[in-house]
Amino acid sequence: MRVGKEEFRSLWIADNGLTVEIIDQTRLPYEFMVLSLETVEHAAHAISSMQVRGAPLIGITAAYGLALAMRAGTDDETLDAAIATLRATRPTASNLAWALDEMYRVLKPQPERMRLRMAYRRAGELYDDDIDTCEKIGAHGVEVIRSMAENKDGAPVNILTHCNAGWLAAIDWGTALSPIYQAFDEGIPVHVWVDETRPRNQGASLTAWELGGHGVPHTVIVDNAGGYLMQQGLVDLCIVGTDRVSAGGDVCNKIGTYLKALAAHDNNIPFFVALPHSTIDWEIESGDDIPIEKRDDDEVLYVHGQTDAGVPGRVAVVAPGSQVVNPAFDVTPRHLVTGLITERGICGASNEDLLKLYPEHVA
Amino acid sequence: MRVGKEEFRSLWIADNGLTVEIIDQTRLPYEFMVLSLETVEHAAHAISSMQVRGAPLIGITAAYGLALAMRAGTDDETLDAAIATLRATRPTASNLAWALDEMYRVLKPQPERMRLRMAYRRAGELYDDDIDTCEKIGAHGVEVIRSMAENKDGAPVNILTHCNAGWLAAIDWGTALSPIYQAFDEGIPVHVWVDETRPRNQGASLTAWELGGHGVPHTVIVDNAGGYLMQQGLVDLCIVGTDRVSAGGDVCNKIGTYLKALAAHDNNIPFFVALPHSTIDWEIESGDDIPIEKRDDDEVLYVHGQTDAGVPGRVAVVAPGSQVVNPAFDVTPRHLVTGLITERGICGASNEDLLKLYPEHVA
Repeated sequence: MRVGKEEFRSLWIADNGLTVEIIDQTRLPYEFMVLSLETVEHAAHAISSMQVRGAPLIGITAAYGLALAMRAGTDDETLDAAIATLRATRPTASNLAWALDEMYRVLKPQPERMRLRMAYRRAGELYDDDIDTCEKIGAHGVEVIRSMAENKDGAPVNILTHCNAGWLAAIDWGTALSPIYQAFDEGIPVHVWVDETRPRNQGASLTAWELGGHGVPHTVIVDNAGGYLMQQGLVDLCIVGTDRVSAGGDVCNKIGTYLKALAAHDNNIPFFVALPHSTIDWEIESGDDIPIEKRDDDEVLYVHGQTDAGVPGRVAVVAPGSQVVNPAFDVTPRHLVTGLITERGICGASNEDLLKLYPEHVA
Repeated sequence: MRVGKEEFRSLWIADNGLTVEIIDQTRLPYEFMVLSLETVEHAAHAISSMQVRGAPLIGITAAYGLALAMRAGTDDETLDAAIATLRATRPTASNLAWALDEMYRVLKPQPERMRLRMAYRRAGELYDDDIDTCEKIGAHGVEVIRSMAENKDGAPVNILTHCNAGWLAAIDWGTALSPIYQAFDEGIPVHVWVDETRPRNQGASLTAWELGGHGVPHTVIVDNAGGYLMQQGLVDLCIVGTDRVSAGGDVCNKIGTYLKALAAHDNNIPFFVALPHSTIDWEIESGDDIPIEKRDDDEVLYVHGQTDAGVPGRVAVVAPGSQVVNPAFDVTPRHLVTGLITERGICGASNEDLLKLYPEHVA
């Protein structure tokens, strides 16, 4: 998508055909810095330190991480070790395991001398598939926005989103933001309420930056404010992304999503979740079984941003001596979800409806 | 309450019998600074800049603000102007109007030469009444905690609170925290989940500081986390304060309270609201009619805290160019409230139940 006048993706292959380049998302919105990943360790660090984040992008980065690993060696031991390294980076997003399993399935039967080339080829296919998938998610989701716009008499459709599920969380388009970009590009008036999304503030720093770069009208709010806005009739629709959807339709997403889903339900506001096929965990029926990552205390103890001197900085915000906890995700139960927006269409948040779209997963 | 080994209140009269001293709450938790208020303008500034905040403390500060005004002149014009100045400081807390109305009722009929003395006397009575009221709120509320503790087999009762409704928000004891302090002082095992409470972080900076000072076990969480903790069975009870309760039982409190009430309701967790009589607005039946303060954009754009150099500082957290909005309160509808904890006992959140406790307000 656009960053001002330039088009960007969140990850690309350098001209040498091997180096993986990413936008360091921990530097945004104040600094646009490109990082080169040359090794599997670089890729693992990029994921665990959240230089890249967002379920789809985590998956693609892991796939290319395996390709980078093959540069150092193509034997089984290297392959297995690289998969173990990458798998350990983050526990919640199912796209990580999905991408690693898919890469393993393709690479394992190959002769060693074929593995490097095949790794880049298959990672590239997953990359292209992610872009295509996200574009299709947008094409389905925009229909919801378009039909709402018909009742707004030219006023913007107000859409609330949580965290970042835009192109920075995928390769291009994004998941939750893809329908919004497509609506905007079509000329449908839209306005996005952007949850700040503590502790890491991906809404204020990434979603707002993305939307601003593409010219989409938006307003940043603290995470506490969304319920009030819904009560006031200022939200027409919620769309969020997800890190893992259980086969039964429960939605694991950034901590706080559940609270917004409750408020949407209480105010009869449609609550949609946008996701690619790779986010569905067909092995788990209930969201209760999704592992919830606990992240570092420092994310709660400090807030990062730009100081008045214009340099990156942080401030401590918690009374000295107080303890903190930092669960990174929560699960929104299926009954609070109006619909799942996938690349194959929109369906109800249930096993039955998911299987209608993905019949190849019928047991 | 205790700050380490010392006992403090949030406001007191200096040895000269005239100067009003407050703790500058914008400096906490990193700096404990006492400010002297000598004029009504000082008092108005202290309220509007949130050096003092919390509905009960706003009321008492306004009452003493009128006493300070009388030092400059005791004529009707001075009285009316001082009331207008103080009334304009903040729109939502009903304790402000309540205290000013009460002071006016007492001062207006007095001969001018009596007004200074009467102002300090009546403000002092409201001050003593606030302490007594908050202590009684605690005595009623602790029964809820005590009965829950009986089913916990020695494990702590986990109580979630939002924003700060402790002694810093009143004169002593607090409202929501009074039952918790009394439970702790009785030896009932308690643990408090403290919502950070963006945008001003009163939970992380004030509630955590208060609880820590008194030795009460607690854990700070981001505002997004409470719903998850409730789903996990880690919250037994919610207690919050309020800035205004409508005669029908709707509860206006710090933005985000509504989201926690929804989550409590969804998880069958009791949600109590603690308040003094002065917080009830008998003129308004529905919470929809409570004016919601919109505060400065900077509260969303920046987060204040302590820099790594150990000095106060702030960081910008929102993508440059993005707009923000900053509603400071929301309304939790009565049906989400398990009970109102008042100085006269605990009642349902309804006009009928409130009038049983306050029959003098029956029309």
